[in-house]
Amino acid sequence: MAKTEILLTKQDIPRQWYNIQADLRSPLALPLHPVTNQPAALSDLEAIFPVNIIEQEVSQERWIGIPDSVLDVLAMWRPTPLVRARRLEEALGTPAQIWYKYEGGSPSGSHKNNTAVAQAYFNKIAGTKRLVTETGAGQWGTALSFACYQFGIECQVYMVRVSYDQKPYRRTMMRIWNAEVSPSPSNQTNTGRAMLQKAPDCPGSLGLAISEAIEDTVTHANTKYSLGSVLNHVLLHQTVIGLEAKEQFNRAGIKPDILIGCAGGGSNFAGFVFPFCAGKISGESDCRIVAVEPTACPSLTRGDYRYDFGDTGGMTPLMKMYTLGHDFIPAGIHAGGLRYHGMAPLVSALMNEKVIEARAVNQIPIFEAAVMFARTEGLVAAPETAHAIRVAIDEALEARKDGQPRVIAFIFSGHGLLDLSAYEAYLSGQLQDYEYTPQGGCVKS
Amino acid sequence: MAKTEILLTKQDIPRQWYNIQADLRSPLALPLHPVTNQPAALSDLEAIFPVNIIEQEVSQERWIGIPDSVLDVLAMWRPTPLVRARRLEEALGTPAQIWYKYEGGSPSGSHKNNTAVAQAYFNKIAGTKRLVTETGAGQWGTALSFACYQFGIECQVYMVRVSYDQKPYRRTMMRIWNAEVSPSPSNQTNTGRAMLQKAPDCPGSLGLAISEAIEDTVTHANTKYSLGSVLNHVLLHQTVIGLEAKEQFNRAGIKPDILIGCAGGGSNFAGFVFPFCAGKISGESDCRIVAVEPTACPSLTRGDYRYDFGDTGGMTPLMKMYTLGHDFIPAGIHAGGLRYHGMAPLVSALMNEKVIEARAVNQIPIFEAAVMFARTEGLVAAPETAHAIRVAIDEALEARKDGQPRVIAFIFSGHGLLDLSAYEAYLSGQLQDYEYTPQGGCVKS
Repeated sequence: MAKTEILLTKQDIPRQWYNIQADLRSPLALPLHPVTNQPAALSDLEAIFPVNIIEQEVSQERWIGIPDSVLDVLAMWRPTPLVRARRLEEALGTPAQIWYKYEGGSPSGSHKNNTAVAQAYFNKIAGTKRLVTETGAGQWGTALSFACYQFGIECQVYMVRVSYDQKPYRRTMMRIWNAEVSPSPSNQTNTGRAMLQKAPDCPGSLGLAISEAIEDTVTHANTKYSLGSVLNHVLLHQTVIGLEAKEQFNRAGIKPDILIGCAGGGSNFAGFVFPFCAGKISGESDCRIVAVEPTACPSLTRGDYRYDFGDTGGMTPLMKMYTLGHDFIPAGIHAGGLRYHGMAPLVSALMNEKVIEARAVNQIPIFEAAVMFARTEGLVAAPETAHAIRVAIDEALEARKDGQPRVIAFIFSGHGLLDLSAYEAYLSGQLQDYEYTPQGGCVKS
Repeated sequence: MAKTEILLTKQDIPRQWYNIQADLRSPLALPLHPVTNQPAALSDLEAIFPVNIIEQEVSQERWIGIPDSVLDVLAMWRPTPLVRARRLEEALGTPAQIWYKYEGGSPSGSHKNNTAVAQAYFNKIAGTKRLVTETGAGQWGTALSFACYQFGIECQVYMVRVSYDQKPYRRTMMRIWNAEVSPSPSNQTNTGRAMLQKAPDCPGSLGLAISEAIEDTVTHANTKYSLGSVLNHVLLHQTVIGLEAKEQFNRAGIKPDILIGCAGGGSNFAGFVFPFCAGKISGESDCRIVAVEPTACPSLTRGDYRYDFGDTGGMTPLMKMYTLGHDFIPAGIHAGGLRYHGMAPLVSALMNEKVIEARAVNQIPIFEAAVMFARTEGLVAAPETAHAIRVAIDEALEARKDGQPRVIAFIFSGHGLLDLSAYEAYLSGQLQDYEYTPQGGCVKS
């Protein structure tokens, strides 16, 4: 048989999330108020998040129970398989084993559903009637739309105008799950109206969409805001991925030597690797843990570890993180989900403590890797996921050079069936590589 | 837990295909030569199919072994899950159980891969270096491209021009798997060139693409032709679906009362139901078996059972089947895979013997059903699959009316992630229902 899978049953879905804050060598640096520069009060957050979510954000408890109603929805696609990429191994002629944890089978086709479901549930029991968010290409908006429908909450998504026009498929998926999708800038907020008056053809930006979503939240009753990455509670909800993977490896009696994930805001990476990090922090494990980012937006490999705003507009609390500066505009690579100027504070802290390492890879090599993966393993990966595939293949080629077996595992964060235009550009030789400059990416000469 | 799945392991993949020809009450009517109207000689087929495939086409053996090399590729996504749609049941308030066999997880996202892999393998061992086919929207071309890549065979796909231009995503998938994709009419054949000279902007048709594919086949060395539905060997290869489903129901101790599948050429329907038909033919089982077709193209419910050509152009052998006439042009419904004027001879024979029954459903109700399914079960179905979902829901509503439990099972033949524009049209109220007329579909008044 070409492929070996390690499957779990519904009964094996984790019952608790793993909170890495309990195991950090030193506590996470506190967020600062954007105006006073003093530690932010939790009450500042209550305008946009429900209290139960804020409690998770700051909790120091190692294990946090997953409510039955959340498990019940997660069980629609979890547990996810851990698969050995034997055909890829054969094509590479490597002595290494390559495993991937497959998150592409969820309703939105990515890991994003894991936190969307939890956030919709906690908002529901806190009395929220309507959740508001922003989305770029639409991956996160899709996941939240699905989750809100499951718990009977209205969902309002501000979608960056240029994606709204150019990527109608994701917009349609949100509508299937009954969400209200507005192009941003929209006529629904002061921020949007002001921008439209100034520039009627404004293509929008993620920063602007965030501003609209937050204005909508604070000006409507029973309405809260939801974020798809970066924050501690989002990463917490994603740890079901790594907890399952750890159990799967345990059952197979296999110890991974290197874990790999792409990192934009950091949530799929964190979800996969955090459950393996405790052993690394305590010194019991020497597993290498690698975050992969695009050369065009290299926050971990080229950024500074300092306080910065989470958004482009400078309205969020200041968070200590690896950042390229909140006004950094990355080049227009196809992996839109990795075009974030900063990095989750928890991932940043582990990077600073050298628990994890980071690598930046360029656009053409990631599609080369993704095409090889599709040909051998039959799965078309999202451009974001392709970053992890690239490094997994590079490590397997290293193993061949060394003549040393090793166990490589990566997270397949999402499928690329709605990103096929990027593959077309690659196959037609129309893609470009980029170099980083502090002013933004420039085309590699 | 919201969902119950019955999973099999890699060891449970069927080792043999089930050939229903061994169990028919009377032998299948022989195909006739298109010119002489006499029973066609097998040697007539050797110009386009390899001998090992022709042997399968006419075999009367009940069980035909699946070669290890085919199993090895099928194991990349098989066995597929049999899933209980509990959330849909709850939404309907039905006492019925609703189960679906999920074929959407394959490389092309549908059941088509099951036969593509077998055909590529048998061509490979017969010495074929290059396989040629036609494709409409691209589902079949994608599956064959993947399969050819696995066995190192070149693949040439003639894609109907209008789909080539309007559905670039499927074209890109074929290119990922290294196929040569040409818009039809093309400059590569006499047929194509003649058409282009007459009408340079010709949008093409499936009939024309078949003609180009067959001309290409007979004018190139070491080249054979491949078909994605209708023929006996294609249906044979699909029986892995029903054999797995039967085993899954057996393990759960559940006896389905009604089996449902959409039917265009008939291959997903046949693959799912044939293994359950033997008991029906012998009288041991009283399970209802329902083929669902579009009102706009109702071959089983409105067609005649007679000899007709398999293609629009009248070049294939004459086959005895339910047909609307080979020159029937169905209305442009979104379920392109169900726009076929005839029906597989094996499915037709079972219909004629009343082993199976048929139902026609309209376009708007099928999308209504598919949206309900996506909302409750998290999966976006292909428009073809939506036909089966519609009837499954109707049966569940009947059960509610009667207050009688029953077990309903349908085949989820493929996902709809590359068909989202059809959902957008439905959600925007832009879809139309159709009525059948012998001259073609007309909009329902």
